[in-house]
Amino acid sequence: MTNAAPITDRIDDPESARESGRQKIDWAREHMPIMRALREEFETDQPLAGERIGMAMHVEATTAVLTETLAAAGAEVAITGCNPLSTHDDVSRALDAHDSITSYAERGVDDEAYYAAIEAVIGHEPTITVDDGMDMVAAIHDDHPELIDSILGGCEETTTGVHRLRAMDDDGALEYPVFAVNDTPMKRLFDNVHGTGESALSAIAMTTNLSFAGKTIVVAGYGYCGKGVAKKAAGQNAHVVVTEVDPRRALEAHMEGYEVLPMAEAAAKGDVFVTTTGNRDVITAEHFERMDDGTLLANAGHFDVEIDLDGLSDLAASTREVRPGVQEYELSSGKRLNVLAEGRLVNLAAPVALGHPVEVMDQSFGVQAVCVRELSGTAYEPGVHDVPDDLDREVAEIKLDAEGLGIDDLSDEQTEYMGSWDHGT
Amino acid sequence: MTNAAPITDRIDDPESARESGRQKIDWAREHMPIMRALREEFETDQPLAGERIGMAMHVEATTAVLTETLAAAGAEVAITGCNPLSTHDDVSRALDAHDSITSYAERGVDDEAYYAAIEAVIGHEPTITVDDGMDMVAAIHDDHPELIDSILGGCEETTTGVHRLRAMDDDGALEYPVFAVNDTPMKRLFDNVHGTGESALSAIAMTTNLSFAGKTIVVAGYGYCGKGVAKKAAGQNAHVVVTEVDPRRALEAHMEGYEVLPMAEAAAKGDVFVTTTGNRDVITAEHFERMDDGTLLANAGHFDVEIDLDGLSDLAASTREVRPGVQEYELSSGKRLNVLAEGRLVNLAAPVALGHPVEVMDQSFGVQAVCVRELSGTAYEPGVHDVPDDLDREVAEIKLDAEGLGIDDLSDEQTEYMGSWDHGT
Amino acid sequence: MTNAAPITDRIDDPESARESGRQKIDWAREHMPIMRALREEFETDQPLAGERIGMAMHVEATTAVLTETLAAAGAEVAITGCNPLSTHDDVSRALDAHDSITSYAERGVDDEAYYAAIEAVIGHEPTITVDDGMDMVAAIHDDHPELIDSILGGCEETTTGVHRLRAMDDDGALEYPVFAVNDTPMKRLFDNVHGTGESALSAIAMTTNLSFAGKTIVVAGYGYCGKGVAKKAAGQNAHVVVTEVDPRRALEAHMEGYEVLPMAEAAAKGDVFVTTTGNRDVITAEHFERMDDGTLLANAGHFDVEIDLDGLSDLAASTREVRPGVQEYELSSGKRLNVLAEGRLVNLAAPVALGHPVEVMDQSFGVQAVCVRELSGTAYEPGVHDVPDDLDREVAEIKLDAEGLGIDDLSDEQTEYMGSWDHGT
Amino acid sequence: MTNAAPITDRIDDPESARESGRQKIDWAREHMPIMRALREEFETDQPLAGERIGMAMHVEATTAVLTETLAAAGAEVAITGCNPLSTHDDVSRALDAHDSITSYAERGVDDEAYYAAIEAVIGHEPTITVDDGMDMVAAIHDDHPELIDSILGGCEETTTGVHRLRAMDDDGALEYPVFAVNDTPMKRLFDNVHGTGESALSAIAMTTNLSFAGKTIVVAGYGYCGKGVAKKAAGQNAHVVVTEVDPRRALEAHMEGYEVLPMAEAAAKGDVFVTTTGNRDVITAEHFERMDDGTLLANAGHFDVEIDLDGLSDLAASTREVRPGVQEYELSSGKRLNVLAEGRLVNLAAPVALGHPVEVMDQSFGVQAVCVRELSGTAYEPGVHDVPDDLDREVAEIKLDAEGLGIDDLSDEQTEYMGSWDHGT
Repeated sequence: MTNAAPITDRIDDPESARESGRQKIDWAREHMPIMRALREEFETDQPLAGERIGMAMHVEATTAVLTETLAAAGAEVAITGCNPLSTHDDVSRALDAHDSITSYAERGVDDEAYYAAIEAVIGHEPTITVDDGMDMVAAIHDDHPELIDSILGGCEETTTGVHRLRAMDDDGALEYPVFAVNDTPMKRLFDNVHGTGESALSAIAMTTNLSFAGKTIVVAGYGYCGKGVAKKAAGQNAHVVVTEVDPRRALEAHMEGYEVLPMAEAAAKGDVFVTTTGNRDVITAEHFERMDDGTLLANAGHFDVEIDLDGLSDLAASTREVRPGVQEYELSSGKRLNVLAEGRLVNLAAPVALGHPVEVMDQSFGVQAVCVRELSGTAYEPGVHDVPDDLDREVAEIKLDAEGLGIDDLSDEQTEYMGSWDHGT
Repeated sequence: MTNAAPITDRIDDPESARESGRQKIDWAREHMPIMRALREEFETDQPLAGERIGMAMHVEATTAVLTETLAAAGAEVAITGCNPLSTHDDVSRALDAHDSITSYAERGVDDEAYYAAIEAVIGHEPTITVDDGMDMVAAIHDDHPELIDSILGGCEETTTGVHRLRAMDDDGALEYPVFAVNDTPMKRLFDNVHGTGESALSAIAMTTNLSFAGKTIVVAGYGYCGKGVAKKAAGQNAHVVVTEVDPRRALEAHMEGYEVLPMAEAAAKGDVFVTTTGNRDVITAEHFERMDDGTLLANAGHFDVEIDLDGLSDLAASTREVRPGVQEYELSSGKRLNVLAEGRLVNLAAPVALGHPVEVMDQSFGVQAVCVRELSGTAYEPGVHDVPDDLDREVAEIKLDAEGLGIDDLSDEQTEYMGSWDHGT
Repeated sequence: MTNAAPITDRIDDPESARESGRQKIDWAREHMPIMRALREEFETDQPLAGERIGMAMHVEATTAVLTETLAAAGAEVAITGCNPLSTHDDVSRALDAHDSITSYAERGVDDEAYYAAIEAVIGHEPTITVDDGMDMVAAIHDDHPELIDSILGGCEETTTGVHRLRAMDDDGALEYPVFAVNDTPMKRLFDNVHGTGESALSAIAMTTNLSFAGKTIVVAGYGYCGKGVAKKAAGQNAHVVVTEVDPRRALEAHMEGYEVLPMAEAAAKGDVFVTTTGNRDVITAEHFERMDDGTLLANAGHFDVEIDLDGLSDLAASTREVRPGVQEYELSSGKRLNVLAEGRLVNLAAPVALGHPVEVMDQSFGVQAVCVRELSGTAYEPGVHDVPDDLDREVAEIKLDAEGLGIDDLSDEQTEYMGSWDHGT
Repeated sequence: MTNAAPITDRIDDPESARESGRQKIDWAREHMPIMRALREEFETDQPLAGERIGMAMHVEATTAVLTETLAAAGAEVAITGCNPLSTHDDVSRALDAHDSITSYAERGVDDEAYYAAIEAVIGHEPTITVDDGMDMVAAIHDDHPELIDSILGGCEETTTGVHRLRAMDDDGALEYPVFAVNDTPMKRLFDNVHGTGESALSAIAMTTNLSFAGKTIVVAGYGYCGKGVAKKAAGQNAHVVVTEVDPRRALEAHMEGYEVLPMAEAAAKGDVFVTTTGNRDVITAEHFERMDDGTLLANAGHFDVEIDLDGLSDLAASTREVRPGVQEYELSSGKRLNVLAEGRLVNLAAPVALGHPVEVMDQSFGVQAVCVRELSGTAYEPGVHDVPDDLDREVAEIKLDAEGLGIDDLSDEQTEYMGSWDHGT
């Protein structure tokens, strides 16, 4: 099964691809001030000397900057994709050209090749794992338990991955420490809200050439990603409808001024649907049947299970690609529903998609980098760990410095006041 | 010192005052669907039969609805104000007319009378306390420790109060359980963001007759209250500047599109300043000196310590009231700074102020009511307790029902999926 | 019928009233930089020496600043109200104390006294009229045509007044020149959008103590005022529904992201209704019957004819004041509808109302002042005249100077480019 | 010079290109309900039978739908591009495949070929011209005055074109009637505000993979396009700075809450610059020198003269393409400025750009189509003509019908009221 080879060995014309990939990485690094500051520190301190890092991430330019930053800190890095459609082959090749980096990621591979590449990374016997969806952690626990003793820990990037790791931890099945990078303020507030929000919408706009002004956008789920999509869609003058299963989030959306409806009612009103729940079967046959002709369906959640494409196929008389990244399902009634990017993460898997904006990845990956540094220096118990607050705060401070943003300091009197309880009215 | 008497005994003309107060309370109750639903339940179940509740709250119409709801649940209630300027005397009198409620709250009393009223409430030997700023908890611990054994617990409404209670708890000095009502999602997201945001700004607008469009509003602090003020001010077309001491909050404000500056720089740019930090000395002499002629200064934090009025007085050649609720300080340079509501909570203490909007108080007080019910039925350890999540969720569900807002339910397959960790890509 | 006397002769205690009124006027003037700059110019140039100005305006602080500015320019001014509920008596008295100003305005007078006051102003034989709703123009044309020959012209402040003047002009019935001050960019964009928007909403908030977050606000009419109300309501996190009769305005609202519905459907969805159409019978019996219990009805249009109160009275089993400025109509079904400020302009006629914010009135009245100056110096033909663009622009420049806002100048090359048509691609 | 040939004769592989172009056109037409409704009417009525239409437009999918709609109305149509970089060759070929359409448009041609193609279109002796930038009108007046007698009239799409036509008209040099399509409410409010706003920003986002959240965006010019860019950028959580030369527009931007600065000051603050002025030399050497390293420069105005690229080249030590559509200019100081899409219209000329969103083009082209219909049926005098209001309104009504949006009708009493002037207060 481990027949995967580094991308450079498999694909022709690595030279020009390397150049194109290198250009993409350089552009990203220019706009990632946190990574630049950390790289400078890491090159001097070599905190990861001797470590082997195994990564399963969306292999595009910003991830490459993280990868190179970890390599610059002294680590050997092996990387593959975490989604068959999100790899940029040229970036993968440019990474693979690096002495201490091996990249197995290739766009559009089938399931067998996808898992073979994960195996190949594991073949490097990583001491630290960096995951975006916990595929690496799962494969090690399932198939390579012998490696666990030598693993210092891991980092998990996504809401979905953290959710599943916590379930695994609750079952007593997680055998090494993993930082829930997704749950840090620096990640959740910026990456999920601004990153997913902006990039999902611009990917939809650029895939369809449609406008949001006056459109009714149904956002399924009002977690951080859903909040971002809803906020940015409203900022483009869409009429936003939110669906939820949690009463407080539903109420929060309502108090924000959005319309809140069950999906069965939203289905009849929406022009565009964006799922962000992290759950499966959010839009199903009963909803497809209520939608208008020409409705657009997109997913901004991690897995491609939110829109029930099997159910849609069952309803469809025919399907065809009407535009790159747009699959039209024509129901027997003649009604046509348009699915973007095969129901995969639209901001990564659409043909025009570039993934999250560079700056928000800078913040997420800043947290990743300091977490990897932390794992190499400090022993943690097995299980899911919150990222230590001072690490998250360190990243925020680096960013403020880079942006030239000054803030106030607490005076001693103020610090004392905040800690006291014996003041009167 | 306990010479305080119920308000009805002290003030003439209680009849017409009661009518005016009753009208205010009725209006509020009409717009508090959560309280109406809970009152119906409480009248039937009498969960507080035999309890004595001591309250120190802003005594206005919505608090009165809470007070009556607790009385309807079978409790004896004694109440006083938590701020000398926030009491509505007519509401106080209408409450005091209730058989099982005694109100000591009176607007504009001096410090001595203020604390005497708290003493008077404590004289009822409460078994449960409900605080807005922890004055009741503090007075009991300081002066009436003998009561602690018979106290089931307390509820604290404010950010500031919870902050101080946690400090007290950390010192090992908190001897009965207190629910941090402020920290619940239902309270923080709605009351602080929407309640403080909307009411602080409309109080400023109606005190000054000035517009926010095109104004530069400096919001000190970007916690929940600050977020609300900033968001609503931007929604009125103000240009918003945020000051912070926390790097992540500063970054959050920056990513929202606000200008982030240290107060020393913001001082020279702002037309209106609103403090929301919960800390002291946020605007001081060095800032006053940089401000423009005509600048407005308001506080939306709990205590009147955020704007350093002593420092301002020292700088001022003269002061006068230029408008009800607006004190002008004329510096020796001729520059005039206008302080609203004496630097007290502007949405409560300004002459026109009505406090938080009714509906957001409905949500906060819904949590208060179910917390009091919880304390009467379940024993908790001394210390600050988070409100049990199911109580908070119960209040959200009551509200959604009342608004007629439907949401989706998780299917069994979805619940199972959210709890699983063994699914592939 | 002309038995009206100046307010000072009719009302006791003018001394303290004058002080209170003077304080209000001084506060306003401090926040009206355009009026301050013009007054300085007018005091020197005396452009209105010898003119008699008759005004029918909302007599509150900002109007008083305009009135005093015109007096400072050398004119004799007589003024009365343009709405029986919008006069501030103390401001009226403070104005009347001025040597060259006579004020007849008094709050709450009946129709007879209202029209008698207009007659009294006309008794001063004005050479220039300044109207807010064209009552003065109408009364002169109807009852005092002998004055028309000596009238240089007039200024009209409102959308409604200009609309009616144009109808009169089309009928050939307008016999002296009137500037359509309402139609200038400086007036329409700022006064109507920001002024009406902010003040109508804060008046509703402060009259009801209710929040806009999560409320459904139905805005009837999407002209400048409606746009302002809709925009500011959305900025307070309301869900906005717009009703219209014009297809392009309806489409404009739709493209903004608002829900657009016929009133018959909006009636069943709204929590708060705000009429801004300038037309009559916008909300009628068929709509009242579809509304929910507790619905709030407010008008932000010039006249009190937009909500059909007669129709509502016919449906009502009883009515009572449930709160200052809120009249409850209880229908026979038990459903209660709440009408604010008797269906009059809510931002002027509600008990707490302060009228438009000071700064936006500064811009409107800046245009008024330069228009009055223009009429005294230049002869215009009878009919409705657009305000000369350079006058409007002059006011904008004064304001930018006052705010310290720098803008760019066109270079000669740029001016030439903008005027040329022979450049290639 | 007229050596231009139809695109199909010049380029290989027209078959697959036609298919790709046809797919793009079909997608667009599906989302252009106004064009679909008009085509249905035109196919029946054949209002353009016998006319020859000459077009110089951005040749992409939505323009193709307009072109085919005019052909369906019975006209012979010849078309070429109005910008060398905005043509989609596949769409051009698909159009050229139509019996009564000849397309000369080809992407990336040089100046000589560009003007030759315009000549080729004129060679068809059009009776009606449709322009986007008045190149066709200019060429006919300059070089083919003999055709003018047989020309019924023209339509002009852009702000810039109308501006130049009015200048030409003022000079007495415009010899046939031209409709100022750009100036209609349906065009200006929707196309410029929403179309330019959304598409310029998504083109920038997808060209750079950068985020707008927290960025400072300098928008040069606050006309309709500038308002759209500013509003949508703020809706993506950018901090917006506006530069202007007109005091009222500057004030309008200020009252909206944006920062207003002269360009010389904005230059030092901006992360991204978007020019929308229609003028030349808006950003010049003095501004480049104040900008930060990494600044992005984009143009959303019609011509590529707003950013002074010659001046920038003079300052630059070297230039290179760092990303498709991004030219980096490295100044001798080492500072790098990034120019998008060679300073041409970024939403059309960037490699990923798709032009305006389909729906907003539907509205603009709906006006174009009814204007062409009008010219074929009614004789107009030479000169620039406003589009008759009923035509514009007709397009709005078609759109509302298509969206299923109901609005209210004026009752007879309301119509009478709006036309009356003799009602009292």
